[in-house]
Amino acid sequence: MNLPGPFRTISTDRAEVASGRLRYTDILMPSEKLQLIPLGGLGEFGMNCLALRYGDDIIVIDAGLMFPEEELLGVDIVVPDISYLIENRDKVRAILLTHGHEDHIGGLPWILSELNVPVYGTEFTLAYVEGKLDEHRLLDDADLIELQPGRRVTIGPFSVMPIRVTHSLVDCVALAVHTPVGIVLHTGDFKIDLSSPDGHPFDLQAFADLGKQGVLCLLQDSTNVDRPGFTPGEKAVIPRLDDIFAAAPRKLFFSCFSSSIHRMKIAMDLAHKHGRKVALIGRSIDNSAEIAQDLGYLEPPPGLLINPGQIRDYAPNQLCILISGTQGEPMSALSRAAVDNHKHAKIDPGDTVLLSSRIIPGNEKAIYRVIDHLERRDARVISDDGTNGLIHVSGHGSQEELRMMINLVRPKFFVPVHGDYRHLKRHIELAKATGVPEKVILLEDGEVLTLDKDHAEKTGKVTTGRVCIDNNSTADVVGDTVIRDRKHLGADGLFLPIIAINRATGEVEGMPEITTRGFAADDPELLRNARDIVVRTLESSNDVERRDYGVIKDKIRADLKRFLQKNANRRPMIMPIILEI
Amino acid sequence: MNLPGPFRTISTDRAEVASGRLRYTDILMPSEKLQLIPLGGLGEFGMNCLALRYGDDIIVIDAGLMFPEEELLGVDIVVPDISYLIENRDKVRAILLTHGHEDHIGGLPWILSELNVPVYGTEFTLAYVEGKLDEHRLLDDADLIELQPGRRVTIGPFSVMPIRVTHSLVDCVALAVHTPVGIVLHTGDFKIDLSSPDGHPFDLQAFADLGKQGVLCLLQDSTNVDRPGFTPGEKAVIPRLDDIFAAAPRKLFFSCFSSSIHRMKIAMDLAHKHGRKVALIGRSIDNSAEIAQDLGYLEPPPGLLINPGQIRDYAPNQLCILISGTQGEPMSALSRAAVDNHKHAKIDPGDTVLLSSRIIPGNEKAIYRVIDHLERRDARVISDDGTNGLIHVSGHGSQEELRMMINLVRPKFFVPVHGDYRHLKRHIELAKATGVPEKVILLEDGEVLTLDKDHAEKTGKVTTGRVCIDNNSTADVVGDTVIRDRKHLGADGLFLPIIAINRATGEVEGMPEITTRGFAADDPELLRNARDIVVRTLESSNDVERRDYGVIKDKIRADLKRFLQKNANRRPMIMPIILEI
Repeated sequence: MNLPGPFRTISTDRAEVASGRLRYTDILMPSEKLQLIPLGGLGEFGMNCLALRYGDDIIVIDAGLMFPEEELLGVDIVVPDISYLIENRDKVRAILLTHGHEDHIGGLPWILSELNVPVYGTEFTLAYVEGKLDEHRLLDDADLIELQPGRRVTIGPFSVMPIRVTHSLVDCVALAVHTPVGIVLHTGDFKIDLSSPDGHPFDLQAFADLGKQGVLCLLQDSTNVDRPGFTPGEKAVIPRLDDIFAAAPRKLFFSCFSSSIHRMKIAMDLAHKHGRKVALIGRSIDNSAEIAQDLGYLEPPPGLLINPGQIRDYAPNQLCILISGTQGEPMSALSRAAVDNHKHAKIDPGDTVLLSSRIIPGNEKAIYRVIDHLERRDARVISDDGTNGLIHVSGHGSQEELRMMINLVRPKFFVPVHGDYRHLKRHIELAKATGVPEKVILLEDGEVLTLDKDHAEKTGKVTTGRVCIDNNSTADVVGDTVIRDRKHLGADGLFLPIIAINRATGEVEGMPEITTRGFAADDPELLRNARDIVVRTLESSNDVERRDYGVIKDKIRADLKRFLQKNANRRPMIMPIILEI
Repeated sequence: MNLPGPFRTISTDRAEVASGRLRYTDILMPSEKLQLIPLGGLGEFGMNCLALRYGDDIIVIDAGLMFPEEELLGVDIVVPDISYLIENRDKVRAILLTHGHEDHIGGLPWILSELNVPVYGTEFTLAYVEGKLDEHRLLDDADLIELQPGRRVTIGPFSVMPIRVTHSLVDCVALAVHTPVGIVLHTGDFKIDLSSPDGHPFDLQAFADLGKQGVLCLLQDSTNVDRPGFTPGEKAVIPRLDDIFAAAPRKLFFSCFSSSIHRMKIAMDLAHKHGRKVALIGRSIDNSAEIAQDLGYLEPPPGLLINPGQIRDYAPNQLCILISGTQGEPMSALSRAAVDNHKHAKIDPGDTVLLSSRIIPGNEKAIYRVIDHLERRDARVISDDGTNGLIHVSGHGSQEELRMMINLVRPKFFVPVHGDYRHLKRHIELAKATGVPEKVILLEDGEVLTLDKDHAEKTGKVTTGRVCIDNNSTADVVGDTVIRDRKHLGADGLFLPIIAINRATGEVEGMPEITTRGFAADDPELLRNARDIVVRTLESSNDVERRDYGVIKDKIRADLKRFLQKNANRRPMIMPIILEI
């Protein structure tokens, strides 16, 4: 089966792979000018990463990941190609983080393993980063430096002032980078919430001050540029959630994004008010809540929190269960509870399941599948249908907030960030219509914007792109197991388990079959054993799971990955194929 | 490469495959009772199909298809398992169609090729059916009988009265089936539109009459059960569309569902008003418009329509181009125009592209990708963002319309149809809350509801399920080529072309590789040639297409399918795999 495949030719040198692209920058870079070089997030959602260069000094704002498009089956995450930073590794001074969401910090392990530079972030952001780096065994060697809103830090020719903004996560900042040619203001993700549940409102005054000082260039979040008006504050969900807590006749399962600390605080406050104990279920919710408690963002009254094992000790109407899995992720606690396969989270008739979240585009079918499972258990499912009062608010500013920021800081130049091409374009139109910026520039990944006090011009392109990563959660040794490029396919290949499932009965028909490509499978014993793994995974799943192909595929993938890594020291890309008959 | 795969064991007898299921029905069927047996559409969206049985007579309402979930890559369409009808083939008297949408008629070729019975439908519905059957070479043998609203037809013990309803398509009916135990009313898809653009409003009086006669059981469309209020009428889009026609500075591309005859009429009327010629682009739009013109639903004034080839003869602001592809389908005219690969549809800077449609869940990413391509060509894209006036309305009734129907016809029993489990469940709650039906029944596919004048009980189950079909559009001989079950994989197998694409450069790395399973590929020459086909397909695509994996996969699939059918007389399932490096 180990035929000569195309993958031998793939794992060529990165420089050679990218040889089709121009690289003017080293030639065109006059040392007295500033360059802005987006490496990710401009022309796509996710993997935000932007380099600022002045002479021989580079700082990087954010190091995010994105989740792969459906065409890239078998890939866990996607991170930006950082060839530009690697080529200039002697110049990179620091990575600065605006906040702790995955699309801003998720690429850090990948980048730090290539380029170990100091990382700056606020206390809460760094707590997330620590967990992530620890998981990847990169923490001991990392140099993490805390940012405090309102306190400047100097890094080479840059002096960076973090300014408090509000967002769905806590402890978020915009970064005002003072450079020799002027101030570059990067908003990060923000909305203008003046009554934030954590008591730290958006710092309007600081932005007004910047406006007085004069901002050379504003880089602003484009996510909600299509939405008219203002985004409601985080507290706007309280009235409806209060009603739901009051009305739930039995257990209340409350699901929100695990990083929604504000939302978890509101849920805990309401649970306390309505005499319900709170149990936390799901690794990501657990982890976030622990960090938030350590740092004082969550201060549940003594006795409010119980262990999942104690759920059985309380009457159903005395329980609120914070559970992860709003996006229908097949292995999440909520998805497993929905198919009656979670030890502690049992969905009984009359329970209420509240999805205090939005649907991220692309996840509709997975979410509706979970809702259908929940309804079959006779749970009442409440999701955001826009009709009955707010149960979720966006963390990103709408058009009026974007206009307000532009009017507050009055930038000379304007560059939209964070968005697909169409968002950047509409943001350009919005900014132009304010009449404030002298010039608006639609910059895309890899394009170099060169600035001095009076000019902003595109002057070239650098290599950018997406790197696909199989983010093995059972990592053991760094640099070997943790992060790997698709190029390693040349060594590790492609592994396709093929399973035929009878839709009518949910039974597997015949034996699973395994096809490989570029995988060193000269050992027929190994393939037989891998097949047995698939059979065992199928046998250990219940009927409902077997009919939910998303779940089945994820389980097969996880089990095979573990098996192949242990028994063959290989990490092929694993793509289960289900044939429904 | 032709290893013994699991598929040998798959193509067993259908009865054996389904042996795990109960079949009480023949035992429990007393001849004086009526049975309702949903074969599709109850517990899922799409493939609507419902059997009514009284003694030895069966009629079937609708014969739809559904589009596959993403897990079922490589499958074109899914149709209901009609084992029950085949087992009772001597009893099946007719198929009656409520309207011409694919989820109501798309399974007809499959069913008629197994079971050639008369098909009843309105004039417009039958025109769609004719085209479909002709394409599958089934038309000559088909017995198509026209239904007219208000005119009863008798089929065995059933007397069926079609009643005019309104929907996004024209010439739609509900079916009031008079049976020896009482009237069963099947609404079909409907909303209550009292100023339909075609001059045929919803027939309120007929439903009120039925209410007076007494309805035993109402089967009602659940699609919009989550929406409060009333669904706006089709004409509600005119004011905003009028503004858009007036304001478009250059060419106006107008994209809507090809079956939206009302919408096409409105577009043509507005084009005429604003002095624009209309060109039709796209096979499905062309086909629909032709039928609608033949039957008098579209009556464009002389000279309004031009051929696509004449587009160049007019100034941009004198043009309106009706184009198919609102869902981002990779091979649609709009998708191809967006990547500058359509002969007649050229998107120039300043053109307007209007998507007068909704996003069908699951298509978000494909649609946003097309919008991004259009924005890069500097077109202004207008899609339904819910903020600036209606450019699309649903064809399904909202909660108030569902309540109104129940109050008009006052059924003794109520069964929701057309929806996922959660829709059926909410519809049950809505119906119960009206206080009208004596009993509400949540029926799912395969469950048998047995009715007499006073009772409605579930009495058993029949085999149901989904059958996956590779719907080859280049069919030549019926019964051999047209429609095939996944089970044929045992003969035709699985064909996986694997292509590595460099994301940064858009170039293909190395040669495509082809993996097969259960495919009789003892001819290495054939595989080499197939590989050449893939190479040619890649070479003939432009850069933009090569970076859009949806497009690339569809093109490779189409070309390989044609090649394999012609050269090997095989129709394996083809699943291109793209590895991004």
